[in-house]
Amino acid sequence: MKIVIDMMGGDNGPKATINALKLFIKEHNDVMVYAVGSSAIKEELVGIDRVEFVESQTVLKMDVDPMTAYRDENSSLMVACKVFNENNCDALISAGSSGALLTASIFKIKRIKNVIRPAFITSFPTIKKDKKFVVCDLGANNANTKEELDQFAMMGSLYYKFLYKENNPRVYLLSNGTEDGKGSPVGKEAFKLMKENKLINFKGNTEGRDALFGDIDVLVCDGFSGNVFLKTTEGTAKAMSSMLKDAFKRNIFSKIGYLLSKKGISEMKNKMDYKNVGGAMLVGVNGVVIKAHGNSDDKSFMSALTVSYTLVQEQIVEKFKKALE
Amino acid sequence: MKIVIDMMGGDNGPKATINALKLFIKEHNDVMVYAVGSSAIKEELVGIDRVEFVESQTVLKMDVDPMTAYRDENSSLMVACKVFNENNCDALISAGSSGALLTASIFKIKRIKNVIRPAFITSFPTIKKDKKFVVCDLGANNANTKEELDQFAMMGSLYYKFLYKENNPRVYLLSNGTEDGKGSPVGKEAFKLMKENKLINFKGNTEGRDALFGDIDVLVCDGFSGNVFLKTTEGTAKAMSSMLKDAFKRNIFSKIGYLLSKKGISEMKNKMDYKNVGGAMLVGVNGVVIKAHGNSDDKSFMSALTVSYTLVQEQIVEKFKKALE
Repeated sequence: MKIVIDMMGGDNGPKATINALKLFIKEHNDVMVYAVGSSAIKEELVGIDRVEFVESQTVLKMDVDPMTAYRDENSSLMVACKVFNENNCDALISAGSSGALLTASIFKIKRIKNVIRPAFITSFPTIKKDKKFVVCDLGANNANTKEELDQFAMMGSLYYKFLYKENNPRVYLLSNGTEDGKGSPVGKEAFKLMKENKLINFKGNTEGRDALFGDIDVLVCDGFSGNVFLKTTEGTAKAMSSMLKDAFKRNIFSKIGYLLSKKGISEMKNKMDYKNVGGAMLVGVNGVVIKAHGNSDDKSFMSALTVSYTLVQEQIVEKFKKALE
Repeated sequence: MKIVIDMMGGDNGPKATINALKLFIKEHNDVMVYAVGSSAIKEELVGIDRVEFVESQTVLKMDVDPMTAYRDENSSLMVACKVFNENNCDALISAGSSGALLTASIFKIKRIKNVIRPAFITSFPTIKKDKKFVVCDLGANNANTKEELDQFAMMGSLYYKFLYKENNPRVYLLSNGTEDGKGSPVGKEAFKLMKENKLINFKGNTEGRDALFGDIDVLVCDGFSGNVFLKTTEGTAKAMSSMLKDAFKRNIFSKIGYLLSKKGISEMKNKMDYKNVGGAMLVGVNGVVIKAHGNSDDKSFMSALTVSYTLVQEQIVEKFKKALE
């Protein structure tokens, strides 16, 4: 298995990616990694077994314009794409700008045949133990057609099926009500297509209110709403964790209370922490392309590497190609 | 002050509204209430000082089609609108279908001059003590134009200003990134209008991730995204409260831990509980129209009544009219 890592992307720079890479390569002895980054990090990487350092010149900013990024051929991301193609790699991981990764992937790694628009997909926790659901699209697009939404439903369904070994995942459309007639104008049209689509198990509309309770397997949304859903979930979880901290700090009794219930509380916080999610896959392109969280630390980037490893092992891209033909 | 209450709306029927009304009227001796409902509840209401019972025949379902609702002139909602107009009332409260309330309000209570589309607005908690922010539109619309979004910014700003006595509220647009160029296609256009708008203090784009942290006063969004934001916040808070409960139930130590930290934890839960929010105001129509939560209990409906009382006292509709001219 060959994986390319853009070592420079993300708010925290190469420190997090280097640590994660070192840990990852130690735990997976069937992997060869191409680590793309500036000469400054070369020293850290040479001599590590199964890691090949590839030098890049520039680093793209997180808020870079995607087309500007695409033209900067010496950036760590664009060099990573080149390395991906030249060495026939299986996966590419970056914690840099999503827009840049998306544009680079579409133009360099290319779409799978019949895919209209690639989409970002990832797993979310639920209140049920070990039960997750996936959301597609999380923001590769800022507006979508009904045909694209219908295809997101199919790709989300396949992703869930292969990752969680569940034959007939329940697909829902994110809407402003649970009734059949609800939805944005394009959502209402997509609803009809999805209802007719024999390749998915479409269950109808749902609301952000119900998503985390474990009865949904695949949540389909346009990239803009999906991004609102993702960031609102993340923000609310973070806000509640912060309020919880304050609640425990009130007085000596609540502090003891915290010590007594610490284990369960940490487990809950971990469950809702995006850093454990492991990044989002860009589905619909010719390779396992993973966007790690921009604010990745070692742990978070390590999760992204582990997810990419699993997806390559599952031969998810080959399965996508076959299904979308 | 004259308030009309649709006693029959909501999932829990008139039980919650009757209890709330009794409590509310006792606490506010400058209010006269028209209580509209079926003959079955008449007995409960006659004899209460400053409450006039008005009989209606039918009750609209929560998932009623808005135009069907509008045509049902004997429903508690439509009779309430009639009573509102005939008695020159100040406020109307219903826990029934939002769509029906919206349609009835637009046709019967009518829009304020220059308002393109009314919008639902309400206050949200933040991690900062006593600091709230407002969101507009929460779902009166399922798609909006740039001009409508710009007007939501103005109405949201006025609402915040009058309710929280803050002269220059910070207005943000809900987007898929914080950079200026981000947004849905219509959001990008609205951004330009809002930037030019001298009547608001526009600060740029924001994400659902940052909204609950206290640095935003007014969050502007199209009705579909706003509804996703509302329900995702609600769902995530509910999911985390449920996980928290499980965490405390783990063993005898965590149970004692809960008892010791109970007070702070309950305060946090209360803060994030939609039932304390007091419903959403339909801004842009000729009266204080409040949609109480469909799942209102006594406490929740009482909050809605209290909010409507404050808004009438603030003469918010008069102020809106003046500002939008």
